[in-house]
Amino acid sequence: MLFALDAMGGDHAPEEQCKGAILACADNPDLDVALVGIRSGMERYLDDVPNSVRSRINIVDASEVIGMGDNPVASIRSKKDSSLRVALEMVRAHEAVGCISAGNTGAIVAGGVLLVGRIKGIERPALAIPIPALSKLTLLLDVGATVRCKPINLYQFAHMGAIYMRSLAGIDEPSVGLFSNGSEDIKGDDVIGEAREMLIGSSLNFMGFVEGKEVPIGSTDVVVCDGFTGNALIKFGEGIGEFVKTLVKDELENRFLPKIGAALMMPALKKIWARFEYEKNGGSPLLGVDGIVIKAHGNSSARAIAGALGVARAFAQLRGTELIKDSFESQNARAN
Amino acid sequence: MLFALDAMGGDHAPEEQCKGAILACADNPDLDVALVGIRSGMERYLDDVPNSVRSRINIVDASEVIGMGDNPVASIRSKKDSSLRVALEMVRAHEAVGCISAGNTGAIVAGGVLLVGRIKGIERPALAIPIPALSKLTLLLDVGATVRCKPINLYQFAHMGAIYMRSLAGIDEPSVGLFSNGSEDIKGDDVIGEAREMLIGSSLNFMGFVEGKEVPIGSTDVVVCDGFTGNALIKFGEGIGEFVKTLVKDELENRFLPKIGAALMMPALKKIWARFEYEKNGGSPLLGVDGIVIKAHGNSSARAIAGALGVARAFAQLRGTELIKDSFESQNARAN
Repeated sequence: MLFALDAMGGDHAPEEQCKGAILACADNPDLDVALVGIRSGMERYLDDVPNSVRSRINIVDASEVIGMGDNPVASIRSKKDSSLRVALEMVRAHEAVGCISAGNTGAIVAGGVLLVGRIKGIERPALAIPIPALSKLTLLLDVGATVRCKPINLYQFAHMGAIYMRSLAGIDEPSVGLFSNGSEDIKGDDVIGEAREMLIGSSLNFMGFVEGKEVPIGSTDVVVCDGFTGNALIKFGEGIGEFVKTLVKDELENRFLPKIGAALMMPALKKIWARFEYEKNGGSPLLGVDGIVIKAHGNSSARAIAGALGVARAFAQLRGTELIKDSFESQNARAN
Repeated sequence: MLFALDAMGGDHAPEEQCKGAILACADNPDLDVALVGIRSGMERYLDDVPNSVRSRINIVDASEVIGMGDNPVASIRSKKDSSLRVALEMVRAHEAVGCISAGNTGAIVAGGVLLVGRIKGIERPALAIPIPALSKLTLLLDVGATVRCKPINLYQFAHMGAIYMRSLAGIDEPSVGLFSNGSEDIKGDDVIGEAREMLIGSSLNFMGFVEGKEVPIGSTDVVVCDGFTGNALIKFGEGIGEFVKTLVKDELENRFLPKIGAALMMPALKKIWARFEYEKNGGSPLLGVDGIVIKAHGNSSARAIAGALGVARAFAQLRGTELIKDSFESQNARAN
């Protein structure tokens, strides 16, 4: 099973990308990775890799790089030999099962839509992030693909999120919440209110509105919101993780007794902090495109890249894209 | 200086409201509080209060209560003898310097606008919350008064937030950030983009877009967003506080060594958790209305109510409402 990895996208590319591919291939004997990017920058990381792994990693040349500050649509269109575009084209041509990138989010979304293409019947894609809530994962979507939504977009995100959680987390009837500024029916705006009506009339296990407080607690399996709100939440959560880390460190520097306490607590605290790094838990699938496209955190380590490759592999094995296609095709058939 | 306290609004009303008034009056010899509500429910809490404090607390009768689930506008209009409405009318009649309520947020906002009235030139009010960022306070507004905004609303919130931070935190030129889904200029939507243009052309110390990650770190003194987003952030933060608390407790129950660690760390951890309870740090002023209206957290303890009374008193002493009025009147004068 071959996946195309954008080796040039991300803060620590291509080093962590190469190392992540090695880790993932060592862990999964059925995995093949195409490292797409500038060959001369990558070869040094592949030198001492055992042949059982090295034989499943290929370098695919791409001479250009889409930077974090590049305009998404313009760069995907103009940089025809960029590592991201070449990787996405491998998915379009069915040369690769899926593509993983830790690069420019907007370019990944634009490229997913323009090159891989939307699934028929889906108006807009959504980036989904599994958030570690108290005792389980909650899938939050959209976190940045569709900044502002129409009701139909939120409705479709709910369906895609439910399919994802059903297939990947094995939950029979995933509960779905619609994010709003309070749980009462009168909350939200016109778009959210209309999406709520659509979801009440759907076959989903729809639980109504959920508010910010419920997301980290995990009151529903899926939480649907527009890309602006989802992005605000995950970045705010990341900032709070940093904030708590700094506060704990400051407390330690000021006191003797808590320093012993913190040393003993540190493994637990680290475990907790790791839970704020949402995207590091395996990357965000771009749902609604006709192929597997996974966005990894820009700051991804090799371990995070390997995690994203693992998510892509699981998604392919469970035929996630096909499940979404089947569901929307049957909906379209019913509607006609 | 007399403040009207809605004694019936909040999860622990009227007990914590009465006790909060006592605490605040004990701390501030120049403070007088009118406890507005159902007399029979309050008298027991005032029995053993020393006369130096008791003499500055009056009960003002109000026979009705606006519940947390009541429709905001309808209940403010129809429940003419509700504790919240009577308290707000005391502000309108200049019998009280300001009003504090831990009740129904929507009703506080609706009552502030309908009864106390907007400051001339201000289109919509904003609820502001001081968030304890790393080394200072950041003022986040709006957190729920104006769910969706026009560019002029965000622009006016920025001005009001800057005046608030200048007067209350003594910051000469408060830095102002406009919340968006990324720091690059192309981020946001049309409303946010237009507000950004207006703020670039203003006299404010405008720093451009800030994203979710920067809010807990405190990269600007003021962060402006619509009420939907602000509400999402503070509630998500509250949920994360709960989440971290539960995770730490779970870790403790599973291990011996960290339990000692946590016992030693507990004072530090409690200090950190308290920082997530944003509204408990003193309540949220409703900026843009022609009088002092402070919303306290629904779950407020006596200490939180006393804190909100302290915020109201400071706002009055610094002539916060007048400063906003003066600023907008001079802007209007310039525009004419």
